[in-house]
Order: sequence, then structure tokens, then C-alpha cells
Amino acid sequence: MQITVAELRLKVLKTLKTNYPAKDAMIITDYLVWAEMSGIKTQGIIKLTGAEPLQNIKPKAKITVEKNTKLSQRIDAGTNPAILAATLGARTAIKKAKKYGFGMVGTRNIFSSNGAQAYYVEMLAKEDLIGIMCSRSPASTTGFDSIDPLFGTNPIGFGFPTNEDPIVFDMATSAMTFFGLILAKARGEKIPKDMAIDANGNPTTNPVEAMQGALLPFDRSYKGAGLGMMIEILAGPLVGSSYVDNKTFKEEWGSLIIAIDPNLLVEAKDFKSHCSELVKKIKESRKKAGVNEIRLPGEKARSNFEQAKISGLVDVDEVILRELKYI
Amino acid sequence: MQITVAELRLKVLKTLKTNYPAKDAMIITDYLVWAEMSGIKTQGIIKLTGAEPLQNIKPKAKITVEKNTKLSQRIDAGTNPAILAATLGARTAIKKAKKYGFGMVGTRNIFSSNGAQAYYVEMLAKEDLIGIMCSRSPASTTGFDSIDPLFGTNPIGFGFPTNEDPIVFDMATSAMTFFGLILAKARGEKIPKDMAIDANGNPTTNPVEAMQGALLPFDRSYKGAGLGMMIEILAGPLVGSSYVDNKTFKEEWGSLIIAIDPNLLVEAKDFKSHCSELVKKIKESRKKAGVNEIRLPGEKARSNFEQAKISGLVDVDEVILRELKYI
Repeated sequence: MQITVAELRLKVLKTLKTNYPAKDAMIITDYLVWAEMSGIKTQGIIKLTGAEPLQNIKPKAKITVEKNTKLSQRIDAGTNPAILAATLGARTAIKKAKKYGFGMVGTRNIFSSNGAQAYYVEMLAKEDLIGIMCSRSPASTTGFDSIDPLFGTNPIGFGFPTNEDPIVFDMATSAMTFFGLILAKARGEKIPKDMAIDANGNPTTNPVEAMQGALLPFDRSYKGAGLGMMIEILAGPLVGSSYVDNKTFKEEWGSLIIAIDPNLLVEAKDFKSHCSELVKKIKESRKKAGVNEIRLPGEKARSNFEQAKISGLVDVDEVILRELKYI
Repeated sequence: MQITVAELRLKVLKTLKTNYPAKDAMIITDYLVWAEMSGIKTQGIIKLTGAEPLQNIKPKAKITVEKNTKLSQRIDAGTNPAILAATLGARTAIKKAKKYGFGMVGTRNIFSSNGAQAYYVEMLAKEDLIGIMCSRSPASTTGFDSIDPLFGTNPIGFGFPTNEDPIVFDMATSAMTFFGLILAKARGEKIPKDMAIDANGNPTTNPVEAMQGALLPFDRSYKGAGLGMMIEILAGPLVGSSYVDNKTFKEEWGSLIIAIDPNLLVEAKDFKSHCSELVKKIKESRKKAGVNEIRLPGEKARSNFEQAKISGLVDVDEVILRELKYI
């Protein structure tokens, strides 16, 4: 159902303020409302529902900087929400890259997923920086010739500034999201074929069996598994988090945020123009029969967001609104 | 057929010295012999054959540094061989990362392909640095809902130090290499199904039609196309090279080499131990029925290389040896 963006923002903020200082609650609210406005429902206010809703997390410690250099920072999030740690991390990466040309921030000891990498890399791209971000999660995805879960669903995101909207691309390296399994289980539904294996390595369409087994890599092959492994290293050992592990399910997620000033190699204004031109060339290329427009990564989400911004209205799942007592 | 590594090296060096100074010839020889020893035949001395063999390139200018900062360098290769430019670039990235924690080098105006990204990122990993490298090439690969070639076969490589051999992963973002098309054409063979489309966007197994049309992304879907696009930006506009273009077929290739000191975020010795442990965990995981050993990316090539090093013998295509008058 449709509600106003303003109302949704106020209600989410109120929910989060029960547990977090206003400043932190605002940061998490900004992310959640962005996800809803962008139509990325699996990464939005659904995080306020379920067995361990975001507003009920009891962080064990404050967010602290464990290591700091000119170019880098490692953050121990003290089991605070990943969204909070990632936003602070992105801001720090921006500051460092604006000053030195490069900024890299690792976050560890975070509670659960930070959601869509697109949100954070877009923050960087809007500052005329190149953003690259990846995150590891508890092992859920297999690869190579293994039948065990090895890597997380391990998303990677890229953001580039242009003269128009930033180019933003964001993908999981698993065939489907772990949240997709949770949702299918909750609804008593099957998952599509060729997405997962059970604990014995046999194909399954049962989400519970898939949870006990493993998801497949996005290409069902070794390149996808290889990329998942690369992200496992960059957002695991490199940030001091876990790796190839699903024991520490709640806290040992990890993220790496990299900000690069294009001025390190070219003039930023040329870079932006060329990125704009690159998009134009792709969009003006010849299309498959029956296709009216070539849509690039992130375009649908941005169009949803802009529409919600203009109309002031956002489509939200009624079941979730009722569960949260927002209606 | 088998010849000694020593003999192959001498002969390749002699071939290259006809056109290049000894120092440059040695750099290119090192790469080509490495590729042959590693069994990466499509990226080895075959580059000395064909219509435009490497030893016959007439570079238009010397390799010059166009831009230099503490953390970065942009190289105009003056149409010198890509292997030369990439090796010099990797060395510079290493120096910068060792001094400042981060080094990024872009190369443009290079002649043709630098071969396997694995070679360069392994150089970085052997210096206890993280290496990430990607390259763009003339448009040959389509994506999204386009039927035009948009991106190159755009490979990306990653290298990480461990307490044993480095972890090295290297992949093209196209379903097959462009060289695979050239080879199939030369042999009068068909290519496998679901690899390419013709100029009208219809599936084809004819390599000539595929060259006039386009290769498909490695996953035949939008994630693969998205990754190809990201590499097109990183190794195109970011290094001052071309993008979404197959007009400047010979020279406007581009590469980006990134070196990161893990000490920026953690202790390098811990990072290496954890990377070793990560490999161990994957290799010790449960295997698919009928699989004896889980082989990780780059393992087969390294095992070939080590075997050639120990035996002093390398397997080389006899047809190529005859064409080069090496036998």
C-alpha cells in the first residue's frame, strides 16, 4: 500500500529511537527509507521485523576505531548494526580520498547485513569519487567442487560519478540472496531450480534444505565461486573478520569500502564526461527484438526513488506495516 | 612437443631482440616463457605468430609517464607492447604501495593484450601486497538487452599473499576469449553453442559471424555484463583510454593495476596466515562425488609452471615452433 515518505520516515525513526541515540537512529532510518523508496524491499524495513529486528539489537560496545592511517581505517562496530558502521565507514573513506586521493575502510564485528552496497557506493560517487564496496557474510554459498557452504552471498558494488546520475552496480555472488530462502521458508514456498543444494550436495528446491546445504554461485560455475572467494578475502581477513565460517552467524560479518579520486590518474571532469558518454553509447546501441530501452544496472531502483521523491508517496508491504503497528 | 625451458627462453629472446632493446626484450620474454611453462598456451608464444606478431610491432613513441603522484601513475605506452607497459606498471605500483600503502597505475596507448592478469597480480602478491588488475580491449562482448559489441573481453585478476604460494584468480568477463574465435576461424572449426551472436543478434557457432557480431557475457546475464561494464570504466575512462569502441582496434587497450598493502588495515603476517587458513578450509571441505581434490583458481597453471621449472622441460605447440623456425 502507499503511504507518504514523510510518515514512513517519522515512524521508522521513532521505532529505532527506542534503542539508539537520535543521530544513529537517523542514519539507519535514512538507509531503510532509501531502500523502500528504491523498491529494494528485501533490504528495507523488513529488517525491523522477524526474530531479531534491527531496533532490538543490544550492541555489546560502542563503535571504535581500531586502526587509523592517513589512507585507511579499521572499525570495530561492537556488534552495532552494519548499516550504521557502513555509513560511518563510507563517510570516513570519502574524507580520506578527498584529502589524499585514496581511502579504504574496513568494518568488522557488525550485526548482520548492511543491505544494498549500492547505497554506500552512490554516496561516494556523488562526491565525485569512485566507490568499490564488498561484504562477506556467514558461509551460505558453495563453489568449485565442494558441497559445503564456503562463502557468504558476498555482494560487490561499484559507483562512478558522471555528469548526470552516478553509475551504480551492485550484485550478490550467489545465485539468490539468503533472504530469499528465509522468505520462501516463511511463505511455505519452494525456491526455483538450480539455485541450491541440500546438505548432501543434491539439488533442492526446498528452502530449509538449502539453508542446511548451500546456495550455488551466481553463474553456477567457477568464475562466480572465484569472485565469491575474492570478496571473502577482501571483506574477511583484510578487515580482521571471519572467513569460510558460519558459526559466528550474527556478528562476524565484514565490509570493505574503497574510495578512489579519479584525479589520481585523469582529470575528474574528463572522467565524468567520459562515463556519461559511455552510458550514452550503451543506451544508444542496437537492441534485441522487442526491447524498447536498454536499462543499465541501478536504473530501475533510481527511477523508483525519484518517483517516490516527486510524489512523496512510497509503496510499502501492508503486512509489514501492520506487523510494525504503523497502520 | 617438449623442449628445454632454457632453449625456449634463448630463442624467444633472440626473436624479440630484432626489434626491442635487450632490457625490454627480456621483460616480454619472461612473460611469454611464464605463460608457456604455466600451460596458458593462448597467451604465450602464439603472440609471436599470426598477422601482427609481437616482434614486428613498430612502437610510435617511447613509453612515457604522463601523470605521476605519490599514489599513482599514468603511463602512455606509445603503442609499445602491452606486456612491457603492464610489467613496468606493476613494478611502479609495487614501489608506491610499499612506500605509501597504496599504488595505482594506469596504462593506455598500448599495443594489444597484456595476456594473463595472473602474471602481474602474482608479482604484487609475492611482495606481500594485494594485487587487483583489470584490462579493457576493443568492444567484442555484448550485454544487457543490446545486440552490439559493447565491452572488451575485459579480464580481472586478483592476487593475495599467503604463507605458501599466493592466491591468484584471473577471469575474462566474456563467455570465451576473442583469441578462441581467431583460433576456431584459423582451424575452420565451429565454436560451442551459447557463446556468441551474429551481427543481427542471432545465436551463432560460426567464429567469423561471432567476430562480426558479439560474444556473450560469461554468465549470459546482466551480472556478467555489469562486471564487464565496470572493468570498461576502470581500464577505459579512468586510465584515459577508449571505451565502448572497436574502431581503434590496435592501440587503445587499457589497464589498471592496483597494489594495496594489507598493513593499511591489519598486520600483514596475520593477513597471510588467515589467507593460508582460508585456502585450507576450502580444500578440506566436503567434495562432490567422484572428486578427489578441490582445485582452486590458478592451481593448475602453477603446478604446470613448477613442473616445468623442476624438469627444465616445457610442452610447446610444434606447429608454432616450426612457424617460428625454432625447430
